Amino acid sequence: MKNQTYRMTMLYDFYGELLTERQKEFFDLYYNEDLSLSEIAENNGISRQGVRDVIVRAEGIMQEIEDKTGLIRRFLAMQGDLDRILAAAQQIKTINYRQYENPTIDSCLEQITNAVAALKE
Amino acid sequence: MKNQTYRMTMLYDFYGELLTERQKEFFDLYYNEDLSLSEIAENNGISRQGVRDVIVRAEGIMQEIEDKTGLIRRFLAMQGDLDRILAAAQQIKTINYRQYENPTIDSCLEQITNAVAALKE
Repeated sequence: MKNQTYRMTMLYDFYGELLTERQKEFFDLYYNEDLSLSEIAENNGISRQGVRDVIVRAEGIMQEIEDKTGLIRRFLAMQGDLDRILAAAQQIKTINYRQYENPTIDSCLEQITNAVAALKE
Repeated sequence: MKNQTYRMTMLYDFYGELLTERQKEFFDLYYNEDLSLSEIAENNGISRQGVRDVIVRAEGIMQEIEDKTGLIRRFLAMQGDLDRILAAAQQIKTINYRQYENPTIDSCLEQITNAVAALKE
């Protein structure tokens, strides 16, 4: 399952709070803390399969919500627009560096790249 | 209830697909199509109170998801960053207009404002 960690981390970031405490705990230990199913099982006194069932169920709940709402899909589509803003800002920066050396333009470009960085967080 | 239309429209935009068909239909007719409770009731052969109950329940479901996930809150917080990008781009545009008249800079600024417009959609 761990080869899907990026997708799982996105699901958890968006929809993790909709899970039960136990689902959250196991999902977090497995995908974010990188414990194995066996380690989580041992620490909680249940079977490895039991841990796996909880995590698979948690994923199913979150994936179903994403399939219906498409909020992660929309969020990822936004990254392209942010990259276009950064590319355009970089082009202005290069022109300003070569031709004008205007410090106000540089300061504005820094505001733009900072805002994009905040949006990408 | 209609004085909260903006908030309701946001809830519906984000989480509407998690509602049942009937909840979606009544919510949409009331908040987006601006029908009255009585009109919806009459068209569906149920009581005005019955319509109201469906809509209030739909709102409760969506608001509970928002309270847990905070996705709309995060989305609204992003608007401030987008406004900062626009303000900085506008400042560069003014400088370029007054001092340099560089068409490549103008073109880059247009790319930035177009990308921000797409992000605000």
